[in-house]
Amino acid sequence: MATGFRARHLAVVGLGLMGGSIALALRDYVDKITGIDSNQVTRDYAVEHGIVDEATDDLYEGVNHADVVILAAPVRVIVEMLRMQIGTYLRSNTLLIDIGSTKSDIVDAMANLPIGINAIGGHPMTGKENSGIEESDALLYRNRPFVLCSSRRTTPAARLRALLLVETLQAVPIEMDAVRHDQIVAGISHLPYLLSATLVATIENQAKTDGAYWELAAGGFRDTSRLAASDVTMMGDILSTNTKAVATLLAQFRMQLAMLETMLIAGDDQNLSETLKPIRTARKEWAKNYENKR
Amino acid sequence: MATGFRARHLAVVGLGLMGGSIALALRDYVDKITGIDSNQVTRDYAVEHGIVDEATDDLYEGVNHADVVILAAPVRVIVEMLRMQIGTYLRSNTLLIDIGSTKSDIVDAMANLPIGINAIGGHPMTGKENSGIEESDALLYRNRPFVLCSSRRTTPAARLRALLLVETLQAVPIEMDAVRHDQIVAGISHLPYLLSATLVATIENQAKTDGAYWELAAGGFRDTSRLAASDVTMMGDILSTNTKAVATLLAQFRMQLAMLETMLIAGDDQNLSETLKPIRTARKEWAKNYENKR
Repeated sequence: MATGFRARHLAVVGLGLMGGSIALALRDYVDKITGIDSNQVTRDYAVEHGIVDEATDDLYEGVNHADVVILAAPVRVIVEMLRMQIGTYLRSNTLLIDIGSTKSDIVDAMANLPIGINAIGGHPMTGKENSGIEESDALLYRNRPFVLCSSRRTTPAARLRALLLVETLQAVPIEMDAVRHDQIVAGISHLPYLLSATLVATIENQAKTDGAYWELAAGGFRDTSRLAASDVTMMGDILSTNTKAVATLLAQFRMQLAMLETMLIAGDDQNLSETLKPIRTARKEWAKNYENKR
Repeated sequence: MATGFRARHLAVVGLGLMGGSIALALRDYVDKITGIDSNQVTRDYAVEHGIVDEATDDLYEGVNHADVVILAAPVRVIVEMLRMQIGTYLRSNTLLIDIGSTKSDIVDAMANLPIGINAIGGHPMTGKENSGIEESDALLYRNRPFVLCSSRRTTPAARLRALLLVETLQAVPIEMDAVRHDQIVAGISHLPYLLSATLVATIENQAKTDGAYWELAAGGFRDTSRLAASDVTMMGDILSTNTKAVATLLAQFRMQLAMLETMLIAGDDQNLSETLKPIRTARKEWAKNYENKR
């Protein structure tokens, strides 16, 4: 695929599932890939499996000669890197993209990078049950939405280059501002995580006196509770950088839940059923229009 | 497999996924199977595909000569059949099992059946994404929990015969009283459904002004919202026959959610993380000890 994306030297900061997969997907379009990670086992794995050409735990050394840098670390680590030193490490005209799960704090931090650094926020809507460099997959991004959020350091040329990069990953670029992005992911990702975790906490509390809760739990519980097994550090980072949007969605969720509960307790079966029907339709329409097409 | 279960004439009332699958699984252990269903297309399908030997829409005719009758209909239909006429249709010493999703109302109704009818409540913890007779699967029950709840009409011999039937389905029989069953399923099934439906309602409300909610929703939303696509009639039946247990669990859920929300809004990341960690562990332990073994 000749999308036009090319880089001389790509640096990927953070060699996890996401960073490793980007490196694999961009392999044929860059001359050299450097991986930066604090974990030696991870670095060795990435080099031995040809995911990167070289790896280091030295951020300066790793990014200093790159013309494209991807920050694939947890949100608060990315924010920290942007605020502290990375701007001064980069060559002028470098394209800097992050793939953190919330965007407002990151795009705000990008605004204070030195002029000449071309920075844009990114959020690929993909993942896998298991994380880690050994799960890297060149097709992880294919057909998945990849949100791009411009910052005060996004030049028109940088934006186009980022779009080409996203297309080279075979992802679907979607541009929007960071605040809107964070509101949306609060609804489709952070709220579901909190519900999932709270469900597990509720059942765990019950199961203290009756182990049959765990024994009988089946497919419905499995799906609804799956997100509760997400990495706590990552989710803590995400929630703490998106508190306002999450709290707003939680308030709306409570309102909707109270409505259903009122009908349930009142025995208003007719109304309950009339309320649940369009919800069912909405879920089925979503699956038909989006999920099943991926 | 010689489990010892035998029947001369099995009647399955309700030819959906669950009833059809029971008929298929018991095929080799009974001399004759009659299916009872109000839908002619369903009856024709069941006979043409050898799921049952004959089918009728006449409840009396269908169950009158059977020595084992399985009620595989929505909960309130089962309760209605038990209260109205089915007791007088059955021969003395018939084994009557239902597979409704809540058990208290059903087991209460069984208590008033004529003496001589041996009735026991059942709830197989299994299912499929799609329903209907054409989804029937002889292995649907294999390795899945099958709860049995005794009623005032459960003789010791009937209980043993029901256990043999469950083993013939290759399911795992779990005996408990109906009230306890209903509390447990309120937690592992009905509460998850309500959360799932409320999540979809919340997102739908947001999506009215921003379609990108649907567009960006990915795997986390998919899993957490899956139950919202459940059949509304079935779920309405289930909720309305388990209101007290569901309302109790909802109150506990709200308490747990408020705790997490307080930490989130207060910015108490340390405490939030310490609370989420054991929740993650509990979910992973459940998957390891139960889900992954099935």
